[in-house]
Amino acid sequence: MSNNKKEMVVTPWEVSGEIDYDKLIENFGTNKLTDELKQKLAKHAGYLHSQLKRDVFFSHRDLDWWISQYEAGNKVGLYTGRGPSGDVHLGHLLPWIFTKYLQDAFDADLYFQMTDDEKFLLKENLTLEQAIEFTYENALDVIACGMNKGKTFIFSDTEDISHIYKLGLKVSKKITLSTAKAVFGFTDSDNIGLTWYPALQAMTCFLQSDREKKNVPCLIPAAIDQDPYWRITRDVAEKLGYYKPAQIHGKFLPGLQQGGKMSASQPETAIFTTDNPDIAAKKVVAAFTGGQQTIKLQKELGGNPGICNIYAYYYYLFEEDDKKLQEIDRNCRSGSLTCGECKAKLSRMVKTFLIDFQKKREKAKDSLNDYFIK
Amino acid sequence: MSNNKKEMVVTPWEVSGEIDYDKLIENFGTNKLTDELKQKLAKHAGYLHSQLKRDVFFSHRDLDWWISQYEAGNKVGLYTGRGPSGDVHLGHLLPWIFTKYLQDAFDADLYFQMTDDEKFLLKENLTLEQAIEFTYENALDVIACGMNKGKTFIFSDTEDISHIYKLGLKVSKKITLSTAKAVFGFTDSDNIGLTWYPALQAMTCFLQSDREKKNVPCLIPAAIDQDPYWRITRDVAEKLGYYKPAQIHGKFLPGLQQGGKMSASQPETAIFTTDNPDIAAKKVVAAFTGGQQTIKLQKELGGNPGICNIYAYYYYLFEEDDKKLQEIDRNCRSGSLTCGECKAKLSRMVKTFLIDFQKKREKAKDSLNDYFIK
Repeated sequence: MSNNKKEMVVTPWEVSGEIDYDKLIENFGTNKLTDELKQKLAKHAGYLHSQLKRDVFFSHRDLDWWISQYEAGNKVGLYTGRGPSGDVHLGHLLPWIFTKYLQDAFDADLYFQMTDDEKFLLKENLTLEQAIEFTYENALDVIACGMNKGKTFIFSDTEDISHIYKLGLKVSKKITLSTAKAVFGFTDSDNIGLTWYPALQAMTCFLQSDREKKNVPCLIPAAIDQDPYWRITRDVAEKLGYYKPAQIHGKFLPGLQQGGKMSASQPETAIFTTDNPDIAAKKVVAAFTGGQQTIKLQKELGGNPGICNIYAYYYYLFEEDDKKLQEIDRNCRSGSLTCGECKAKLSRMVKTFLIDFQKKREKAKDSLNDYFIK
Repeated sequence: MSNNKKEMVVTPWEVSGEIDYDKLIENFGTNKLTDELKQKLAKHAGYLHSQLKRDVFFSHRDLDWWISQYEAGNKVGLYTGRGPSGDVHLGHLLPWIFTKYLQDAFDADLYFQMTDDEKFLLKENLTLEQAIEFTYENALDVIACGMNKGKTFIFSDTEDISHIYKLGLKVSKKITLSTAKAVFGFTDSDNIGLTWYPALQAMTCFLQSDREKKNVPCLIPAAIDQDPYWRITRDVAEKLGYYKPAQIHGKFLPGLQQGGKMSASQPETAIFTTDNPDIAAKKVVAAFTGGQQTIKLQKELGGNPGICNIYAYYYYLFEEDDKKLQEIDRNCRSGSLTCGECKAKLSRMVKTFLIDFQKKREKAKDSLNDYFIK
């Protein structure tokens, strides 16, 4: 790998290179999340979430409309999901934690899609049985994020297909192969399952409306790479008599190593929720930082939090207190904080977080079934 | 319409023109049904079915292998189906009557697929709810053909999708868009549901094996226009660890009017099982025949049963007695039988048949649920 910036690639299947989020807003034709909208969310939630303050969620489509529907006294809904092809890591939890915040703020039902069919169709060596196993494993992580029982409807595309196939068919009838090819880059070498699948990911935007026999405005909190799916959905929504889904787009949690997002396919870059907490702590200690090569140089020149993954973890997830975060930034730049100290503190926080999360995850096993669609 | 022979078109979606069945065997690369094979079927059934004697079923793939599996003491299965987009007519019953013969002869389970998803995706103006309604209406006709309870598993692609989606996905992963385009003539203007659907029609060949967790040789009795689906299935079968399905191909029942098969989209050409028996009798009287323009000419020159639709109905369905059939042929050609007499007799037979069939169809309502897959 050269030191040149790698070209940015952001699609539902690949996220790589140096991510320029302003450029994504421009490329994808979305809107920047304004302070005014953030304050509206904060008003309904009772507080401004750190992921809003820090621009982890940074872009949207029609969020203002979705909030105004709620403010007019209408029921509103949420939809997000997961491609279950492996264990869940902190990068996956990021938007789910924010989704829980939205669920509480707007008293919203959440439809959570496990796209085990897509993952099976996409990955040469993944069996369907394995993908389905990950559905149930990953659902424990969703529940452990504190999603509200009775208002959260997790479903597996394969195991719960009877709830979604008909609506998927109606959506699929409105999407031509040409459109799917243009949006997702499908080619004629792709399999006929994969080219069908976008209908199911689009369908979920209308699932609550379909089940409740009334139009419920849907908001999708998700990482921005999934945006192409909703572009298609927005095109077909009105033809089917539904509202276009609103969206709120999140950034990717950086990996522990240099470059790219946290990625399950490179385990050394990722902290999994199922990692042994001590092993996870060691991964943190081995992470890439923005510090100098030696303690001596660090004390002389200071480090650069702007390119530091350890700092990113404080920023994204582990230090919600703004003052303390600023202190880390200041002390790093001045050279009074060494990478060793900074990593040690984060690794303890990660360990504590995992021990707690794993307890919740274990407890979720008792009520797993209660969270699935009926 | 000119008097020239119209070009033969035989695809899963269109059957038109003058059908040359020998040519189809050549074009499709299937095998002619030999006397030896017919006799084998007759041996197990206890009698030679008129549809075999008269070459209504005329072509096959691997039927010899399927019979030999049965003779070796192995369980064998049957699969056929229906695209439920309207009422059932006699042309649809033809292969089902033969399927019942095979079911009895080989003590076989029958998987009967109602492709309501395909019909919805294909037909601009058909709603999914209408297609599903036809599924249950048409199932009454299937049951009225005498299919064996406890050994017949009717299923709707949409209503019973939970039984079939996973297997469909596994099949779909092995079929590229290129293949589907080449076999079915799909283009990029087709919708992404329609291009997915062949996976479900192919899947049914393996459904019994999948459910019973052992490889059960499958035979598909169906009109020959459906052959392209099974070509794809045969290609993927071994990759998935299943036997290739065997097939036995039927001819199309001619319509009542000149040219083409009995077609639901041209009601005057078709006798529906739900027709008022008196109306049906009148349709017969209005049918195209091979007779002369006047009774006088008929008596002088005789008629031509070879191009007569009335004769075809005796031949295909209503006159099982070979001697009586020959008598009709002889008396027509000699001019001693007029079209009026011949039609009057057939219209009485059709009326009697319908009255009886409609009773069975009515009775089927009580046990409809018993015939659906669980």
